[in-house]
Amino acid sequence: MSNWSARKWVLAARPIGKPKESDFRFETGSVAQPGDNELLLRTKFLSLEPYIRARMDESKSYAASTAIGDVMFGRTISEVLVSNHPAYSVGDIVLAKAGWQTLSLSNGEDLRKLDPKIAPPTAFVGVLGVPGSAAYIGLRVIGQPKPGETVVVAAASGAVGSLVGQLARKAGARTVGIVGGSDKCAFIRDKLGFDAAIDHRAVDFEQQLAAACPNGIDIYFENVGGAVWTAIWPLLNQFARVPVCGLVGQFGQPVPPGPDRLPATIRQVLSKSLTIRGFIVDNFPELFPDFEREIIAGLKDGTILHREDVVDGLENAPQAFMGMLEGRNFGKLIVKVADQPV
Amino acid sequence: MSNWSARKWVLAARPIGKPKESDFRFETGSVAQPGDNELLLRTKFLSLEPYIRARMDESKSYAASTAIGDVMFGRTISEVLVSNHPAYSVGDIVLAKAGWQTLSLSNGEDLRKLDPKIAPPTAFVGVLGVPGSAAYIGLRVIGQPKPGETVVVAAASGAVGSLVGQLARKAGARTVGIVGGSDKCAFIRDKLGFDAAIDHRAVDFEQQLAAACPNGIDIYFENVGGAVWTAIWPLLNQFARVPVCGLVGQFGQPVPPGPDRLPATIRQVLSKSLTIRGFIVDNFPELFPDFEREIIAGLKDGTILHREDVVDGLENAPQAFMGMLEGRNFGKLIVKVADQPV
Repeated sequence: MSNWSARKWVLAARPIGKPKESDFRFETGSVAQPGDNELLLRTKFLSLEPYIRARMDESKSYAASTAIGDVMFGRTISEVLVSNHPAYSVGDIVLAKAGWQTLSLSNGEDLRKLDPKIAPPTAFVGVLGVPGSAAYIGLRVIGQPKPGETVVVAAASGAVGSLVGQLARKAGARTVGIVGGSDKCAFIRDKLGFDAAIDHRAVDFEQQLAAACPNGIDIYFENVGGAVWTAIWPLLNQFARVPVCGLVGQFGQPVPPGPDRLPATIRQVLSKSLTIRGFIVDNFPELFPDFEREIIAGLKDGTILHREDVVDGLENAPQAFMGMLEGRNFGKLIVKVADQPV
Repeated sequence: MSNWSARKWVLAARPIGKPKESDFRFETGSVAQPGDNELLLRTKFLSLEPYIRARMDESKSYAASTAIGDVMFGRTISEVLVSNHPAYSVGDIVLAKAGWQTLSLSNGEDLRKLDPKIAPPTAFVGVLGVPGSAAYIGLRVIGQPKPGETVVVAAASGAVGSLVGQLARKAGARTVGIVGGSDKCAFIRDKLGFDAAIDHRAVDFEQQLAAACPNGIDIYFENVGGAVWTAIWPLLNQFARVPVCGLVGQFGQPVPPGPDRLPATIRQVLSKSLTIRGFIVDNFPELFPDFEREIIAGLKDGTILHREDVVDGLENAPQAFMGMLEGRNFGKLIVKVADQPV
């Protein structure tokens, strides 16, 4: 029996700073027939997320780095095409880490069977996936919004930021979102219910942010890094909390050599009793049941919305990915790889 | 009946940077007879602490700033000389905020009667006072040392640092103290049981610190600020915690204008899941009973030692205070104002 033919994007070169087209290479290859206890998966949707940029760099930790010539990393919503595995049947929809390719083999590890009756499968790479859990865990463990407090989040129309705003609002907080462009401003204010929306491209951005936070900032949910900090820092209130979850604007940029200004930062941390805390969602597995229950309920009763930005065709993945790193996506970025039956 | 005559140090000028002698003025004045529900207190001991420097600056908050011409702020161990207050008797020893003066009036508010049978009264401005509670609360709430972890503290022979080291050691952690001078190194290693002691004046300080922390740093208890950070920062482990409690080296220094390097700092906060959190002890009153019980028990059974650096005579307070800001004290700095009966 012949092997299967698959298309895939591999890492052609390690980017310096922002990735460019020549850092990716589109290949066609064959996939072997699945052996005992193996599965053949067809990628329906590929999830593109900023942290994939970090995997394009060389790393001390092998697991976190993609080798040159290897398929690009990515979470996928996949369909079981062939199953020699007792736990999975043909036609099952699974959450996988199949990467930027049309077909892949799996030994069944690191898969999760999805029930489309609970939520649309793509929600499990967005509002019910890593981005959603980052919003939930960062707010619940570190942010802890209280009624009347002011919560600010950047990339507020994205997968993390949009949920941060909606969860903070549910907790009774005033929510201020920072986005790029007037269409995103209108979306987070009119659809997601943010109290204020600010375009970071505005020339008077700092003044607008201050005006939108008349009582200062109690929680700044940090998921972009970079220039926004200059505007945030002076507005932080006594006892402000800063969950640090991901830095879209920072991946792949050269790291300045040392903490030159750290003493000044630390002085402010003291004088305002600030909390600045980094986290990764994998370290809070105990919160996942609550997370899923609350978000699924919110999706069902319409109090939580999520927006997807779906790009058609695996061939467009690099362009979509590079655009996302510059903020050009509008909602959770997903590549539709195949959604017709075989 | 004639008034009482008292000596006092008042703030003569607001220091720029480090205080100098001319910023203080020694005066003699009279203290009125205490009225109804008032007390006359005689200062036995004056506690000198770094945060007093901050009160010499102008401040938005009136309460936290000493006015020009006003008596210098300070916690004291005082004796009741005259009492028209039902809760206090002549001879009672109280913890007060009488400042840098020999006599003071009090309406009984903000006083605490001390029982010399529990601990020597001066312990209540040191290991059982604000410095001790800062060490205890910073470790318990933020640091949370676990067996085998490495805890680093600067100013390790001082009131805060010496207790941080001893409590961390009790928790099973490896303790590394940073001090200035070989006598202090010997003291914290040989008397307080630190696993390693490092002189920050050594030319190879950074190398020594790295060598003393072969498994990195899990907790850096920040109580000095300044240059030590450059050596600490690269050694911080994944999930490291940084309680920020006071910055001896920073008070009165000009604040750099902005968080220029903050994005780099925040990136590290993310990549290592760091926690950096400022705190002031007044915000954790619920921990004080545990704090006092545990420290009193440790003092009684000899597992907690505290060292006092006692300067004789109120006239020497400014010199002692200025020396402390440069690290010249050796232990909790106290000025003996009067310890003979009237």
